[in-house]
Amino acid sequence: MQELCTFANMIHQDTIVALATPSGEGAIAVIRLSGDDAISIASEMFYSISGKDLMNQKSHTVHLGNIVDGERIIDEVLATIFKNPNSYTGENVVELSCHGSEYIQQEILQLAIRKGCRMAKPGEFTLQAFLNGKMDLSQAEAVADLISSDSKASHQLAIQQMRGGFSSEIKILRQELLDFASLIELELDFSEEDVEFANREEFQKLIVKITKLLKSLLDSFATGNVLKNGIPVAIVGRPNSGKSTLLNALLNEERAIVSHIAGTTRDTIEDEISIGGVRFRFIDTAGLRETTDEIEKIGVERALEKLKKSAIYIYLFDINSMSVEEVENDLQSFSSSAKQIIVANKTDLATKKQLQSFNDSVLEVLFISAKEKESLDLLSVSLLENAGIEELNSNQLIITNTRHYDALLKSLEEIIKVQEGIDNNLSGDLLAIDLRQVLYYLGEITGQVSNDDLLGNIFANFCIGK
Amino acid sequence: MQELCTFANMIHQDTIVALATPSGEGAIAVIRLSGDDAISIASEMFYSISGKDLMNQKSHTVHLGNIVDGERIIDEVLATIFKNPNSYTGENVVELSCHGSEYIQQEILQLAIRKGCRMAKPGEFTLQAFLNGKMDLSQAEAVADLISSDSKASHQLAIQQMRGGFSSEIKILRQELLDFASLIELELDFSEEDVEFANREEFQKLIVKITKLLKSLLDSFATGNVLKNGIPVAIVGRPNSGKSTLLNALLNEERAIVSHIAGTTRDTIEDEISIGGVRFRFIDTAGLRETTDEIEKIGVERALEKLKKSAIYIYLFDINSMSVEEVENDLQSFSSSAKQIIVANKTDLATKKQLQSFNDSVLEVLFISAKEKESLDLLSVSLLENAGIEELNSNQLIITNTRHYDALLKSLEEIIKVQEGIDNNLSGDLLAIDLRQVLYYLGEITGQVSNDDLLGNIFANFCIGK
Repeated sequence: MQELCTFANMIHQDTIVALATPSGEGAIAVIRLSGDDAISIASEMFYSISGKDLMNQKSHTVHLGNIVDGERIIDEVLATIFKNPNSYTGENVVELSCHGSEYIQQEILQLAIRKGCRMAKPGEFTLQAFLNGKMDLSQAEAVADLISSDSKASHQLAIQQMRGGFSSEIKILRQELLDFASLIELELDFSEEDVEFANREEFQKLIVKITKLLKSLLDSFATGNVLKNGIPVAIVGRPNSGKSTLLNALLNEERAIVSHIAGTTRDTIEDEISIGGVRFRFIDTAGLRETTDEIEKIGVERALEKLKKSAIYIYLFDINSMSVEEVENDLQSFSSSAKQIIVANKTDLATKKQLQSFNDSVLEVLFISAKEKESLDLLSVSLLENAGIEELNSNQLIITNTRHYDALLKSLEEIIKVQEGIDNNLSGDLLAIDLRQVLYYLGEITGQVSNDDLLGNIFANFCIGK
Repeated sequence: MQELCTFANMIHQDTIVALATPSGEGAIAVIRLSGDDAISIASEMFYSISGKDLMNQKSHTVHLGNIVDGERIIDEVLATIFKNPNSYTGENVVELSCHGSEYIQQEILQLAIRKGCRMAKPGEFTLQAFLNGKMDLSQAEAVADLISSDSKASHQLAIQQMRGGFSSEIKILRQELLDFASLIELELDFSEEDVEFANREEFQKLIVKITKLLKSLLDSFATGNVLKNGIPVAIVGRPNSGKSTLLNALLNEERAIVSHIAGTTRDTIEDEISIGGVRFRFIDTAGLRETTDEIEKIGVERALEKLKKSAIYIYLFDINSMSVEEVENDLQSFSSSAKQIIVANKTDLATKKQLQSFNDSVLEVLFISAKEKESLDLLSVSLLENAGIEELNSNQLIITNTRHYDALLKSLEEIIKVQEGIDNNLSGDLLAIDLRQVLYYLGEITGQVSNDDLLGNIFANFCIGK
């Protein structure tokens, strides 16, 4: 069932090399070699004053020396040795920690290639780890998720998945199912004797158990996706209601974490805020900002479009220029399945009477002053509540990956067929075919079933050096 | 003479932490802790499944485990232990190699700070290395040069300086001079007895030796500066002579190295080319591109301004539209101390007669076709020749640092005073004063004499994490 020939061949012939740290200038950079010849190639490039040969060093030890190209010294480095199978890839690995000049990085990479290494493809180190059984496929995918994680929630999901998470459970259930499938296929060989090697009652229990797990994992995808990609929040309101001030105020409060995240453009950063570890994506509704009534109607329509794409919307109004009736009218013009948070802004300028009129109304209003940063914490709490995400339980299994979702969905479809087959007393040979399909799709998640296309797709999304 | 109190105090109280790899997303990132408590702080954050305690591990060993904040797992990392004094800084050092997510980097940094670390200041790891005697001041400065080196020449200069280079020689001569100074000062105590502890003949020899070294180092600064910062080259020529094509062709040839260098802006890259390991900075002379004669005159004037700033200029002309006389006229309008390379372009379209007319002239012309990339190697050779830089000899001492130049210049001024003092039979006490000045300025180079201001200035230019 495994079709790893091409990838497997590639792995065992070559020693690969790549920069493992981010490109650019820094104090240090790490260049990683992996493969049968990693240590011997590194030792050819490495000269230690004390005469140490990297070939004779223990695994997990670090050595100071120069990278030399003939007589020429390229850099003073630390070389760390990891010996097969006790390394990230499961092969011999050498990590060279050099000075963080891009010139030096390039010189060392080029030297390693001249000495017999090949430049690693994206994700190839992790691919090797997978092929050498250091991790399953969903764990390998979690490595990429972990590297791109930029909020507490997305980080926690990636860590959970990398540590085995749902895939270990799937692996166990798949093994049990495989055993049953083998027994049922064995029955076929003895079909004329009408024997039942597979205990049908146990088998039925297992089917139910798997169906339940699949359904719960599929259900978790919505949450997982939202946690990974952020919760879309639209802020709507009339001109001068203070939307920009609110966004900036929220940004200031939470910027400590968000500002460290590069790679996202500045525009995106300004609209993305991590609150309580959950990312919210604020969607611009500039339409409501137009001035004449006729155009404002179009603006409202546009805002409604945005509302459809959001999970939550904040209706923001200036408490000093709006009556309860006007707010109610605005709210009625919105029809959205998104959750609603009504926020009265500029309370620092409001009279007691104005505050009272909204307090007395049926509207559930949050009173804030974006400018004075008053009561913003109430808004944060409300956003988290409306996001419908309880504190992430570390034992909770959540999937975030579309590929997993698809494979789980197909597994569920097939296992329903198996269930129907049992219910309809389907013959063993037909049951076996459906079972194989379930096994196939479950195996795709963990990588127990894989092929070059699948692996190619997955690892192409990795960065080089991982 | 040493005034390291403030820096020294700072060092011995704190354990510092910083990201050592470039910021941004990558396969891995390295976070470095240094100080007395580096290993104990790291061990509080580190949990290994096998129950390993980092406190009990040998120096230069690597350990797999999780970084944990209470119950929460932040990342799976490799922790490398370096024990005082066998580390970069000379103190206890732990390097945590984590997944290259910026979120994870921040979480680990913040955790280390909560556990008692302080964020490192720019260059503070190297400052510690200097204060702990792991390197002298000029070697420490070479670390920063090495990190920012982006050509073979600037890299080689930095490596040489980091390995001791000229500072070791200065240190030896300074020690000899210090011995003489002490003897001469001793004579002062016995001044009434008219003794000479210091052998005047040996002393005179030493003064000559030092003077000679100082002069040769000062002379090397021009070369060093050019190698470090690139050789300015102006390309001048009439419109459509093919300047842009030439630049692009040169870039294509040499881009293999240059394109890897980030941090410099794209504009700068397009104008900087590394040829034979030496960087050339091509200066734009757009002025000559104007079309009408009147404006072209102004353009020529502007180009002449650029010429003044260049070390070399390339006069480029289209061989198919210029006569020998016209070229000679153009050349006469330039008056520059820069070296001249006359290049005939578009030879692929030229007739034999045209080529012959320039061959027969007194002009020394290089014939190329930028478009067809013909004979560009001849131009490269000519640029290198005109740069006046012989193949860098690894034993040749070259200074590149303005601070060193200033200190060497002051040392030379003072040692000339000492020489004059000897020649004029100056009294020992006055000689001693001048000698102390020489010792002071020589000591500033190696850091044997230093103060907070000096150190502050030097290390402020480092990146954080180095």
